Amino acid sequence: MRAFFHPDQHLHDPKQFMRVGRIADPTDLPSRTEALMAALTRVGIAPQVPEDYGTAPALAIHKPHYLDFLATAYERWVKLPNAGPEVLPNVSPYWNGSPDRDGRPPCRSSHVVAEAGYYLGDLAVPLGPQTWRSALSSTHTATAAADAVLAGERLAYALCRPSGHHCRTDRASGFCYLNNSAIAAQRLRSRFAKVAVLDVDAHHGDGTQEIFYRRADVLTVSVHADPQIYYPFYIGYADERGSGEGEGFNLNLPLSAGSGDEPFHAAVARGLEAVAAFGAEALVVALGYDSHREDPLSVLSVTTDGFAGVGRLIGAAGLPTVVVQEGGYQVSVIGDCLERFLTGLAG
Amino acid sequence: MRAFFHPDQHLHDPKQFMRVGRIADPTDLPSRTEALMAALTRVGIAPQVPEDYGTAPALAIHKPHYLDFLATAYERWVKLPNAGPEVLPNVSPYWNGSPDRDGRPPCRSSHVVAEAGYYLGDLAVPLGPQTWRSALSSTHTATAAADAVLAGERLAYALCRPSGHHCRTDRASGFCYLNNSAIAAQRLRSRFAKVAVLDVDAHHGDGTQEIFYRRADVLTVSVHADPQIYYPFYIGYADERGSGEGEGFNLNLPLSAGSGDEPFHAAVARGLEAVAAFGAEALVVALGYDSHREDPLSVLSVTTDGFAGVGRLIGAAGLPTVVVQEGGYQVSVIGDCLERFLTGLAG
Repeated sequence: MRAFFHPDQHLHDPKQFMRVGRIADPTDLPSRTEALMAALTRVGIAPQVPEDYGTAPALAIHKPHYLDFLATAYERWVKLPNAGPEVLPNVSPYWNGSPDRDGRPPCRSSHVVAEAGYYLGDLAVPLGPQTWRSALSSTHTATAAADAVLAGERLAYALCRPSGHHCRTDRASGFCYLNNSAIAAQRLRSRFAKVAVLDVDAHHGDGTQEIFYRRADVLTVSVHADPQIYYPFYIGYADERGSGEGEGFNLNLPLSAGSGDEPFHAAVARGLEAVAAFGAEALVVALGYDSHREDPLSVLSVTTDGFAGVGRLIGAAGLPTVVVQEGGYQVSVIGDCLERFLTGLAG
Repeated sequence: MRAFFHPDQHLHDPKQFMRVGRIADPTDLPSRTEALMAALTRVGIAPQVPEDYGTAPALAIHKPHYLDFLATAYERWVKLPNAGPEVLPNVSPYWNGSPDRDGRPPCRSSHVVAEAGYYLGDLAVPLGPQTWRSALSSTHTATAAADAVLAGERLAYALCRPSGHHCRTDRASGFCYLNNSAIAAQRLRSRFAKVAVLDVDAHHGDGTQEIFYRRADVLTVSVHADPQIYYPFYIGYADERGSGEGEGFNLNLPLSAGSGDEPFHAAVARGLEAVAAFGAEALVVALGYDSHREDPLSVLSVTTDGFAGVGRLIGAAGLPTVVVQEGGYQVSVIGDCLERFLTGLAG
């Protein structure tokens, strides 16, 4: 199995985010990637540095005006009087436009505070001096893994950071700035007529769902904690099935609080049945470890060994598969989770 | 002229809001009302305590599920582990529903963090232990002033705090929790077939605009700093004219940064021409002093004397008029601004 990682992904080093009315210490630490790199070494995989694909793979999913914001916001922000250390939104639009999931027009005001509120969907996506560079490098990693599978590899792992699955065509949220999983899935479509995304991060893969919500060529499946009680709250319910041509091509499998290995595996198995019924020719796995019982954000109770079972189930599906790294914030366990997952995946 | 104020309006005592990525000291201080009360004394007006109207006037404008949130959120919030001192949103929905301006369905998740992000539209509406009580009292004040005009007074002043004009049917924002101006206008409709709202706060009266956007019986006019460079950023542009039956019954008059008395008066005069052309039988004035050159949030340059001119223009229109207090944060000048305004208004 080939794996990819770009050292610039370390550079994104958020200082803060906001939870329940307080500024909190960051959770998406650069040390996460070190723990995952060490796990790759343990299983004998040396990740490669991806080539520089520029913005083309990101633009296959995201709006140009959104990328312009990400690329320029920090420099504009620091010129504001008394600006905080990172771009953070303090306003948000009450969106009265079209309900089109394909994205919104550019922000009407070009003031960076207005754009921050328009393009950053919550207080968990601080934009620092290196965020754009890291996020773009993360898309190169996802793209290189997809290209490896397009070139004939059965399995490839993209050690993405920052994560991507909450990001829409035109809005960052939940530590995610560019949707690496969606970018990989879109890339795979150049050869495979039907591609599925199976998201097993503890949080609903809302960005990925919305990006493909009207499409029949990409099935999106997400296993996650019940959004009634867990981020992203507003979306990720079982009755969201896709719309228009995409009707029937989205499947949400929410789990109740406290769910451990058994219900988690059952949901993954059910998701894989849907992937098979769809006739997917290739698979993207959006892999998070925040379902782990020790994760600081977790409401689920998956064990470290539980990730071996997830890997085995996915490996048994036998599809050309790109594994894209999403969340997981307990640095002391995520390396072991990846190791078990990859061992299970290899069968 | 009669005036109204409820002492419970003092109770709302916000601790913080967020600006350009930093937690900042609050701006909507309880001392604002003391300065305005002193001004009333100087012009010989003794404000009355309004009766308790319950929630009926608020429900004539706002959604029941939104009021339920305001009434219950703080108590639910403080039970969360490590909760901050006030309810503040850290998430926000990407609204994919109907573009209907009449409001949204209840929040799908009943988690208070989810509801905070759904119902609080920005980081300037902290909800503390007394916010609901103060906001509801503020609607009583607006309602009593409207009732005075309905009973035959030519002029009545509602010393509202918290303010209201940014608040939608179902979303607080910009220091505003319940839309006092809209509530007063709706109340006036029980006798007057055509009512106009003239908003001269420095910020666009976006909540009021949206509440009446599809209606032909309430004309909304707003004079404000250009939203390209100023809150609320996303709305308040000159091309927003109303929709459906309300087409042509909204008028926005944005002013460029630095505008002083002359352009401000010209815009107010133009707004009053629209009010006359509409055939308004009664008027609500949403009065702010944040256009003052010394206001900490201001980008305009209106002088204290300038408010006398605004009062004179409005008084000369000769309509039954309810003046509803909105913003203005420089406590050292707002009393004088009110005094000049009322003196001008009385002619």
